[in-house]
Amino acid sequence: MIVALAGGVGGAKLAEGLAAVVSGDLSVVVNTGDDFEHFGLAVSPDLDTVMYTLAGIANAETGWGLAGETWGFLDQATRLGGPAWFRIGDRDLATHVLRTERLRRGENLTSITADLCRRLGIKARILPMSDGPVRTVVHTPEGALAFQEYFVRRRCEVAVTGFTFDGADRARPTEEVRSALQHPALAAIVICPSNPFVSIDPILAVPGLKDLLRESRVPIMAVSPIIGGAAVKGPAAKMMRELGREVSAATVAAYYRDLVDGIVIDEADAGLASHIEAMEMAVLIVPTLMRSSADRRALALGCLDFARDLVMKAVAQ
Amino acid sequence: MIVALAGGVGGAKLAEGLAAVVSGDLSVVVNTGDDFEHFGLAVSPDLDTVMYTLAGIANAETGWGLAGETWGFLDQATRLGGPAWFRIGDRDLATHVLRTERLRRGENLTSITADLCRRLGIKARILPMSDGPVRTVVHTPEGALAFQEYFVRRRCEVAVTGFTFDGADRARPTEEVRSALQHPALAAIVICPSNPFVSIDPILAVPGLKDLLRESRVPIMAVSPIIGGAAVKGPAAKMMRELGREVSAATVAAYYRDLVDGIVIDEADAGLASHIEAMEMAVLIVPTLMRSSADRRALALGCLDFARDLVMKAVAQ
Repeated sequence: MIVALAGGVGGAKLAEGLAAVVSGDLSVVVNTGDDFEHFGLAVSPDLDTVMYTLAGIANAETGWGLAGETWGFLDQATRLGGPAWFRIGDRDLATHVLRTERLRRGENLTSITADLCRRLGIKARILPMSDGPVRTVVHTPEGALAFQEYFVRRRCEVAVTGFTFDGADRARPTEEVRSALQHPALAAIVICPSNPFVSIDPILAVPGLKDLLRESRVPIMAVSPIIGGAAVKGPAAKMMRELGREVSAATVAAYYRDLVDGIVIDEADAGLASHIEAMEMAVLIVPTLMRSSADRRALALGCLDFARDLVMKAVAQ
Repeated sequence: MIVALAGGVGGAKLAEGLAAVVSGDLSVVVNTGDDFEHFGLAVSPDLDTVMYTLAGIANAETGWGLAGETWGFLDQATRLGGPAWFRIGDRDLATHVLRTERLRRGENLTSITADLCRRLGIKARILPMSDGPVRTVVHTPEGALAFQEYFVRRRCEVAVTGFTFDGADRARPTEEVRSALQHPALAAIVICPSNPFVSIDPILAVPGLKDLLRESRVPIMAVSPIIGGAAVKGPAAKMMRELGREVSAATVAAYYRDLVDGIVIDEADAGLASHIEAMEMAVLIVPTLMRSSADRRALALGCLDFARDLVMKAVAQ
């Protein structure tokens, strides 16, 4: 049994690879700090990206939304004065409308997500990091911005100075997340190649979650979202730079050093291995760029092998 | 200035004709007894049929929804376990989502409808009969059914024994409806060829509305939705039969006799004129079947002429 922590696109890709190769259960704990209300509907971008990817219905070109989408709703809503900056497709809208209705009736996000996954034929457990709302706030010289304002409306153009996670102090790990991390059959925890600042940190900000990771006594590894000094997708590299850090897989390693046993870096970053090992972390060097399903499976298998190595190493010591 | 009372399809058609020929203002007071919540969204079928028809974007074939509609939302929502019995198209959904969001923020239905109409380029005022909820309940030997349960889900197949209008006792005419009916320039009130039991009666059930009609001192006329002993569309004839009445334009006349000065019947029913006149109502005999836009305009012009005749007749007496 494997637990993965994931944000959006990069996390979803590795989750897909893990789902294909893990023989036992896979639980993916997903960031909900990106969640927001739009058109009065509860939108959970990272949950949906992971869900659509594992269901095989994601739009591979855009990295968000559904393949074969239509846009009648947004076209008409814009005509009627609604906002156009966040693009919701007609099929995607079904998720938001049904989720919103069920949340209003008092059902929790974990239960709703489980049911949607079941109907989409997804075997892996997709677990929201918490049922209580946590909202990532992006701090900038222009003031604080709600995450989607920064990410979609402003296209990450404004510089960041830091992040806070509204509501995190009142959030707590769900029973389902707790059970997954405390499961006797748990073999490894994989931090997916998602943005450390706005995809993984919100998850780690849920009080008690870091303790659950540490108490699990299984290998914890992180896959670097930085390859050759650049982010594969999204603003991770830009944020790193704006926060005054070197854009490097070594920076990712340093960021997670108190939490993880090993870090997975790309072959392009092989030269950083000794530097990272000096931080007392094991290093796995494999191709980490996931262009195809085969790439995703190969990286997932690499992570599982790495976990076995880390266990052997711990036993040997 | 003209005020029309309308339900769905038939009412919308005459409203379109009136909008084309009335030189001054046209206000259409629309039944909201059909309104219901579906997918957690506020759906107002009659308001939307009138709105889409006056905007020239209605689906003429179905009598509901928008022309050129797509169905991605409903298809995906059904896959995700949502109900499929009430068909909401992708573009249509924009109306419901935006309306629901604005209602939740505290805006009233009248104001929301006015804004949607403005954005759709509609000059006529479309006025919900009330801002407070009124819900038509259909009584049957199987028990009481919510209107859409009867109308769409059960396809009007079950026999009716009567109707009640939940919430009507707490509803009241909006300021906008009151102003329209008390306007000094008001020239006539037209009850459109809508279902008397479930389209017009809910409007008349709003406390104070009948008094406003009577106090207007302008000609009130009703256009019969029954032609040649049958309804043009919908369950009006079937209901009439089930309620033990003859399916006839004369039954419509008798139903409205305490309220209207004149009734407009189709040429096919010319033989009923003397019978109706004996009920002390004026009768206009014109083609009332509205197949084309020209038909709608011709019927609207007939109604305006009839109003003038009724005024002259009143002056002469």
